[in-house]
Amino acid sequence: MNQKYRVAVVGYGNIGRYALDAIKASPDFELAGVVRRSLTEKQPSALQDIPVVTSIDALDKVDVALLCTPTRAVEEYALDILSRGIATVDTFDIHSGIVPLRRSLHAAAIAHKTVAVLSAGWDPGSDSMVRTLMEAIVPRGITYTNFGPGMSMGHTVAVKAIGGVEKALSITIPVGTGLHRRMVYIELAPGYNEAEVAQRIKQDDYFAHDETHVVVVDDVDQLIDMGHGVSMERKGVSGATHNQHLNFEMRINNPALTAQVMVCAARAALRMAPGAYTMPEIAPIDLLPGDREKWITKLC
Amino acid sequence: MNQKYRVAVVGYGNIGRYALDAIKASPDFELAGVVRRSLTEKQPSALQDIPVVTSIDALDKVDVALLCTPTRAVEEYALDILSRGIATVDTFDIHSGIVPLRRSLHAAAIAHKTVAVLSAGWDPGSDSMVRTLMEAIVPRGITYTNFGPGMSMGHTVAVKAIGGVEKALSITIPVGTGLHRRMVYIELAPGYNEAEVAQRIKQDDYFAHDETHVVVVDDVDQLIDMGHGVSMERKGVSGATHNQHLNFEMRINNPALTAQVMVCAARAALRMAPGAYTMPEIAPIDLLPGDREKWITKLC
Repeated sequence: MNQKYRVAVVGYGNIGRYALDAIKASPDFELAGVVRRSLTEKQPSALQDIPVVTSIDALDKVDVALLCTPTRAVEEYALDILSRGIATVDTFDIHSGIVPLRRSLHAAAIAHKTVAVLSAGWDPGSDSMVRTLMEAIVPRGITYTNFGPGMSMGHTVAVKAIGGVEKALSITIPVGTGLHRRMVYIELAPGYNEAEVAQRIKQDDYFAHDETHVVVVDDVDQLIDMGHGVSMERKGVSGATHNQHLNFEMRINNPALTAQVMVCAARAALRMAPGAYTMPEIAPIDLLPGDREKWITKLC
Repeated sequence: MNQKYRVAVVGYGNIGRYALDAIKASPDFELAGVVRRSLTEKQPSALQDIPVVTSIDALDKVDVALLCTPTRAVEEYALDILSRGIATVDTFDIHSGIVPLRRSLHAAAIAHKTVAVLSAGWDPGSDSMVRTLMEAIVPRGITYTNFGPGMSMGHTVAVKAIGGVEKALSITIPVGTGLHRRMVYIELAPGYNEAEVAQRIKQDDYFAHDETHVVVVDDVDQLIDMGHGVSMERKGVSGATHNQHLNFEMRINNPALTAQVMVCAARAALRMAPGAYTMPEIAPIDLLPGDREKWITKLC
């Protein structure tokens, strides 16, 4: 492992920050640089000794790009970067959009002889691999995915968009059998009525289907914690035998795990045939660096 | 999925029996027949309407063979069947022998343009896939695999081989951090001394390294239960972030799960390039029948 793969981080929000850590800790990758939308603001101190550019073209020899962008920007960035023959990894998480995105990125990846790994966070992502394995080895039955307790990025963004909300935090609480309670903490903007704002939040499509509680607080920032978790349970039938119980549980720092999964997916991307892949389409061993036989000895 | 793959079951012990169930429940497989060492005994009623033969050559158009044989017989059967261009799946479980077996079967599979999936039970097997994923997404840390409570086939066979033991059952009890207690239930042969037999069991290499208790009972058969389980825990570091906790837990019927994993591995074998593979080398989606996009929509 003399020659390291060169990786670009596109976007420098929460995930981008943790992606730098994951790249630094990986024996087989080196950071080519960070791509940001604009360089007008002063760069954070963590980026001081790192090439920061506004176009991936300005970076030297990039093998793979981690798209740490908002989910709705993924396709545009991915198609652009794939067209330069550079592999991409993203954490696209709009469930109904995954198959269409895979088709779109697949065509681009084939055309430019490269690889895209999409929806490669923890859910969708590593959780999807576990759900797939559970479905295979217990083919009849029900899988419940119970998220939390932890901050939901998507729900928090949705609350912030509602009139009268100054700052917000939406926490997901698992109540079992794949159902969730939403605990929404907000700072109220001056002149707004608490009951009316709470009503608008509960009517929003993100919250209308779940039990939702809105709590007004003085300082939302004091409540923010990046810890998250999941419990995936499957009970069902293998062959003709009932009562097979499987459970996968995690308690993790959310952006740290997301960034680590992206780095694993980048490694797989550089080993696979041209095309676009979701995580269940990747052999787990391809997520690990170095020699296969060493891992088989350790992990089988 | 009009044309079903034809599968042969080689060996009709515990796993072989459950393999028939798993094949019957699979939409994409049909049973070609069962291969047994000898046909001199009366066949069990479950095999009444099934072709039972002593050589796989006597079965019509076999695509893949499930080797439900003792682990030490796997290599000989696999090499023979691979040489006929038929894919094989086994549950070889001697840890230090997996890499050498993979090399041996790989050469044969390449030579005969077919596929072998080895060590495809639940441990080694599906557990190995989960351990691999855990290692990838939390690259620094420790994984503990805690087995049981449940009957250990290997340990039970080892006890039975000891002088003075008429019948035996060895149960594995997890005591945490990958350590295990062995509860050994035996029927004593006439004329043997309980304390002496217990001593010999505890000195056997299968038991010498674990806390072992030997209990003499009147009727071992009354204690036998095929339920088993595992809890795999990993705590460690993603990127630079500590305190990432992962846990995978199962409570399952042992031979039923083993047989189901074998059928899943057979499906993957028929999709992969020639060669030999362990379970972590298989993309989880290849364990499932039918259309990829349908599974991606359901499981991502």
